[in-house]
Amino acid sequence: MQNFNFYNPTRIIFGENAISELQNFISKKYKILMIYGKGSIKENGIYDQVKLALKDYNLLEFGGVEANPSYETLMKAVTIVKKEKIDFLLAVGGGSVIDGTKFISAASLFDGNAWDILSKKVEIKKAISFATVLTLPASGSEMNNGAVISRKESHEKLVFSNELVYPQFSILDPSVCTSLPKEQIANGIIDAFVHVIEQYLTFPVNSPLQDRFAESILNTLIEEGPKLFANSSDYESAGNIMWCATMALNGLIVCGVPEDWSTHMIGHELTSLTGIDHAQTLAIVLPGVLSVMKENKKIKLLQYAEKVWNIDEVDESKKINLAIEKTEKFFHFFNVKTKLSDYKVSLGVIDEIVARFEKRQLKLGERSDITSDKVREILRVRL
Amino acid sequence: MQNFNFYNPTRIIFGENAISELQNFISKKYKILMIYGKGSIKENGIYDQVKLALKDYNLLEFGGVEANPSYETLMKAVTIVKKEKIDFLLAVGGGSVIDGTKFISAASLFDGNAWDILSKKVEIKKAISFATVLTLPASGSEMNNGAVISRKESHEKLVFSNELVYPQFSILDPSVCTSLPKEQIANGIIDAFVHVIEQYLTFPVNSPLQDRFAESILNTLIEEGPKLFANSSDYESAGNIMWCATMALNGLIVCGVPEDWSTHMIGHELTSLTGIDHAQTLAIVLPGVLSVMKENKKIKLLQYAEKVWNIDEVDESKKINLAIEKTEKFFHFFNVKTKLSDYKVSLGVIDEIVARFEKRQLKLGERSDITSDKVREILRVRL
Repeated sequence: MQNFNFYNPTRIIFGENAISELQNFISKKYKILMIYGKGSIKENGIYDQVKLALKDYNLLEFGGVEANPSYETLMKAVTIVKKEKIDFLLAVGGGSVIDGTKFISAASLFDGNAWDILSKKVEIKKAISFATVLTLPASGSEMNNGAVISRKESHEKLVFSNELVYPQFSILDPSVCTSLPKEQIANGIIDAFVHVIEQYLTFPVNSPLQDRFAESILNTLIEEGPKLFANSSDYESAGNIMWCATMALNGLIVCGVPEDWSTHMIGHELTSLTGIDHAQTLAIVLPGVLSVMKENKKIKLLQYAEKVWNIDEVDESKKINLAIEKTEKFFHFFNVKTKLSDYKVSLGVIDEIVARFEKRQLKLGERSDITSDKVREILRVRL
Repeated sequence: MQNFNFYNPTRIIFGENAISELQNFISKKYKILMIYGKGSIKENGIYDQVKLALKDYNLLEFGGVEANPSYETLMKAVTIVKKEKIDFLLAVGGGSVIDGTKFISAASLFDGNAWDILSKKVEIKKAISFATVLTLPASGSEMNNGAVISRKESHEKLVFSNELVYPQFSILDPSVCTSLPKEQIANGIIDAFVHVIEQYLTFPVNSPLQDRFAESILNTLIEEGPKLFANSSDYESAGNIMWCATMALNGLIVCGVPEDWSTHMIGHELTSLTGIDHAQTLAIVLPGVLSVMKENKKIKLLQYAEKVWNIDEVDESKKINLAIEKTEKFFHFFNVKTKLSDYKVSLGVIDEIVARFEKRQLKLGERSDITSDKVREILRVRL
């Protein structure tokens, strides 16, 4: 096992009607800005539940955060936070709204050009406290300190993370899943699944507990995902999927083990250039990464085949191919297409993505050996 | 899954030479009281490592905290904390020293009779910040907010917990295991094992992820425990056991599931009346709880038999008995005896324990149905 530093102070309040507990965790003295997305919370009743729980508070609102939250939109919220002297932010939404709120939290108290937090990785020194009401199990953003922010102007999608932007608490009520469209449930399950893969399918470092935890999440997603996909009102499955998604990216399973993240890095570029949904890009890219990098990942791929897909096969190469096939079929089960051609992505897009990685001279993967040439190979096999 | 509230802000700094990082996490302005046990840290070099790491600090010391830390001893430390205006406590030790430090942290800022924190469960309002340097993987105290304190005078062993007594951070360096006696390694493994069992072997509530996490810890203890027992200098196994012990009782696997703790409650009485080591009492009592309560725990016992001990047996009763046998044999493997007669405990002690539970009218177990009569039955089968 490698050395590590684990810290995660986010409180999780989990269960039916948990939204009604909001007032137990926010000081009445605070002036709050509630941040949400395109307004689906007004249709599914979550907006009303939050308003009711916070009826005694000085509560302002900022709606309209888009999927792949944009710097442009978020800076409008920063203006409000500064002008209104907001003390506390409340994100009500999925990963995009929560990621956006993290950026607002940091940018509102940042001296200088807030874009530098993303582009130059300038470290923030303070941030406004915030909490979340999760409306979609997927990103894990409700219990971590990372955010992915896009800039429309330049078609960039960049990440930042800081210990100051852990949510103070997050409300996880599985019943929010009832009103979710099937596609969002599918995307959420795939997002969580690939988060685990990025922290598990690398190379072995004698970390049996972390490996078992990762396999636990994958197996539970495989078992419970189809139930929730079939019936979004299944509270029990919704709870299990929600807890899986949170655990998939809260810093726990990565303690002491290598990380990959190449699927995400390539996927982000694909989203920023084509607008394909985040989870869909993961479903496209992951099988490419696994097949192109299969020699590098051999030992863990064999373990994955056995422990996650119960593949009983002596020939190692066949075993690995079967595991990759099963992974892709798992995505297909949720009606998510996994080839670039399914999304009519042109060869030109591949060239542009490769050019971006070339320019940044960034090498991806757990061994930093996925060069821009490898990125091309990975995308080519997904045509 | 049941509703839950999870919160754990303790930072874990894990790895070889992690002790040298102490100064990165404690303000130089603090006046520190270093708290330790009977002095083994002076023999194994850990004392010197801590002193070196904190050579630029105003550092006082309080040694002599015993196994089953006593109220009497800890109150001496409280006097020093008050007199010397200590800002920060540093526990250097195993579960007893850390538990003791939690009590010192709470009692030093408590208005009134500090014993009330334990006996009357009076809630504390503040506590002195503290950190830990773990010297023995076992109790999980390094990443939780609970403590067990004994009073010599009255032969009582009582618990308290509060969110204010989470360690601010804990240093986990697996190399501390090198100098541990075999008995302590055995006790630590058994302690962690039974912690998991208390939160797992209850009744099913549709919590597949929590169940798999619990089974992950149990399986890793079964796999790695014998390696560390055979060679305490095996850094890799020490790291795996250490991480298991921390995860076994940091609030994670209990999220949304029922808890038992009857083995611990009965074990505490056994320790306070006879002085038998904590882990040994668990090894004695657990097989009794499992066999006497087997109807109540049937579904989870069958799951345990399958997922932890890989028992392939159609007859359910045989399957459960085999699982209980395997559990006891696991304790025997580490040379820990599991019968009351092995420790020459008289029938009178059983009577006294039963009388204590009768007096408190406390019903134990996940269904609160372990009456004092059941306690007698459990202890009788362990004669």
